[in-house]
Amino acid sequence: MTDWLAVDWGTSHLRVWGMSRDGAVKFRKTSDAGMGHLTRDQFEPALLDLVGEALETDRTPVVICGMAGSRQGWAEAKYVAVPCAPPGIDRATPLATRDPRLTVHILPGVKQTSPADVMRGEETQIAGFLALNPKFDGIICLPGTHTKWAHISAGEIVSFRTFMTGEMFALLSEQSVLRHSVAEMGWDPEAFADAVSTAMSNPSDLAARLFSIRAEGLLNNLDAHEARARLSGLLIGAELAAARPYWLGQHVALIGDDALCKAYADALGAQGLPVKRTDAERMTLEGLKAAYEGLKERAT
Amino acid sequence: MTDWLAVDWGTSHLRVWGMSRDGAVKFRKTSDAGMGHLTRDQFEPALLDLVGEALETDRTPVVICGMAGSRQGWAEAKYVAVPCAPPGIDRATPLATRDPRLTVHILPGVKQTSPADVMRGEETQIAGFLALNPKFDGIICLPGTHTKWAHISAGEIVSFRTFMTGEMFALLSEQSVLRHSVAEMGWDPEAFADAVSTAMSNPSDLAARLFSIRAEGLLNNLDAHEARARLSGLLIGAELAAARPYWLGQHVALIGDDALCKAYADALGAQGLPVKRTDAERMTLEGLKAAYEGLKERAT
Repeated sequence: MTDWLAVDWGTSHLRVWGMSRDGAVKFRKTSDAGMGHLTRDQFEPALLDLVGEALETDRTPVVICGMAGSRQGWAEAKYVAVPCAPPGIDRATPLATRDPRLTVHILPGVKQTSPADVMRGEETQIAGFLALNPKFDGIICLPGTHTKWAHISAGEIVSFRTFMTGEMFALLSEQSVLRHSVAEMGWDPEAFADAVSTAMSNPSDLAARLFSIRAEGLLNNLDAHEARARLSGLLIGAELAAARPYWLGQHVALIGDDALCKAYADALGAQGLPVKRTDAERMTLEGLKAAYEGLKERAT
Repeated sequence: MTDWLAVDWGTSHLRVWGMSRDGAVKFRKTSDAGMGHLTRDQFEPALLDLVGEALETDRTPVVICGMAGSRQGWAEAKYVAVPCAPPGIDRATPLATRDPRLTVHILPGVKQTSPADVMRGEETQIAGFLALNPKFDGIICLPGTHTKWAHISAGEIVSFRTFMTGEMFALLSEQSVLRHSVAEMGWDPEAFADAVSTAMSNPSDLAARLFSIRAEGLLNNLDAHEARARLSGLLIGAELAAARPYWLGQHVALIGDDALCKAYADALGAQGLPVKRTDAERMTLEGLKAAYEGLKERAT
C-alpha cells in the first residue's frame, strides 16, 4: 500500500515515488510535466495524471521539493536563510487541493543574503546526505546546470555559492560558434585534465581560451571530442579556481549526475583532494523521507 | 558611374558600396543575405539581386572582405599568418563568376598559430585604420560578438587575441536563467562601472557572480536595467583583466558598434587609459579602398 508520495518537482521533470510508511519504495514514476511547462492550475492535474490511480481514499501525504515551490510554481514556499539546517516539514508550505485524496506539503528553498544566492531542491539532497552521514563536516558540491558548493557544519548549511558552469557549457557547446567544433557526445580525459589545469592556473582569460577551441578547429582540425572535453575542463577549472576557498583542505562530497560528478571528481582528484561520490537520486529520496519523518512525528 | 564595388560580407549581413574610381561613395545597399544564410551557389545571385542594376557591361571589380571568404563561404580565401600587414589585394582570392559584368576578389583573414586564433573582416578594418593613421603603433580593440585585441607595430599585426565576450553576453542575457532578471534594453552606467571594477579585481569567480544577478533579482528585486549593465560589466571586466598585457601602458584605438565601444571606452577610461574611438563602417570602407588601390596599381 502507498502511504505517502515523495516528489522531486524540477523545472523540466516531475519524479514521484510511491512510499510505504516505513520508507520502502513501492513504485517510481516520472513525466516531463516540469514546473517550466505548467501554469499554477496544472500542477494538481499533472500529479494526479501520473499517480492518481495509486491513491487510496484517505488523505495521502505528499512531500514535494524543487521548483514547484518557486514563485512561478504550484505555490511559493519561501526561502529559509542560511545559516540553517536543510529545512524540514515544519518550514514546508501546506497546500489545499481540490482532490480530497491529497494533503500536500512543499519544502522551501534556501537563500543567502550576501553574496546573494538561492537554491531550491539541492537543500533536500543535502538533507538526505546528512540523514545518512549525520556527523559530516565539510563541503558538499552539487554539480549541475547551476552547480552549488555548500559549506556544512554541525548539521547546518553555513554558506553556499552557485556557479553557472553547466548552463554555460550547454549554451556554448550547443548555441555559440563553438558548436561547429565541439562534439555532442564523447570525451577525452587527457584534454579535460589539461584544460582544468590551464584554467585553474590562469582562470581570468577564459573567454579567450574558449575562442581558441574554435580557432584550433579551423586551423588544426582539433578533434571534436577533445574540443568537448576541453570546453568542459576550461569551465570546470575556472569554477574550481573560484571555489578554492570552499574546497581547499576540506572533505568534499559530490551529489549529482554520474558523468558530471566523475568529471568533478577527476578534477578535484588532480588537486590531491579525495572526494566522496553519492547516488543523487538516493540523496533526494532520503531528504524527502527525512521530511516525512517530521510529518509522522507531528501526527503522533 | 560605379567603377567598383566595395563589399563587407559578414555572417548575417551583406553590405555593398558602389564606388567611383577616386574613392567616392555613389550608393550604399545592405541586405540580410549574410554568409550564414547562403549556400556556395547563392552568393553571386545574392550580390546581383542587391546591386545588379548598377553594373555596367564591362568587368566591374568587386573587393570583398569578411565571412564570404570562409570555408563555408563563396570561396575560401586562406588565412595569412601573423606577423603580417593586413593582407591586401595581392593575397586576395580571385573568383570566376557566371555573370561577365563581375570580377571578384575576396580578401583573406588572418591567423595566429599560438595561441590559435583567427580573424576575418577585422583585418580589413585594421587596414582602413592604418591607411588613415599610417604611423600608429599600439593596440586596436575591435569590440563585437567576438572581440579582438590586436597589437600593431610598424604597420603589421604582430599578435592578436579573441574574446567571446559579446556572444556570451547575448547567450546569457537572452537564453540563460538570467533572461528572467536582465532587461532587453537599457543601461545603468554606475552598475556597469562597479561590475567592471569587481570583475577586474577578481576575474576568476565570474560564473558565481553571474548567478548572483539572478539571485538578487529573486531576493532583492534587482532592477532589470541595472542587471543588464552589471552582466555586461562583469563580462567586459573579466576580458579587460585577461587582456591587460595588451592594453597596459598602450595607446588603444576602438573599432566597433558605437554603444559597445562607449562601454569599452568607459571601462578603459576608468583605468586611466585614453582611447581613440573611430567610425567602424568607415574603417571597413577605407580598408576595402586600400585593397582597390592595389588593383589599380596592378592595372597600370
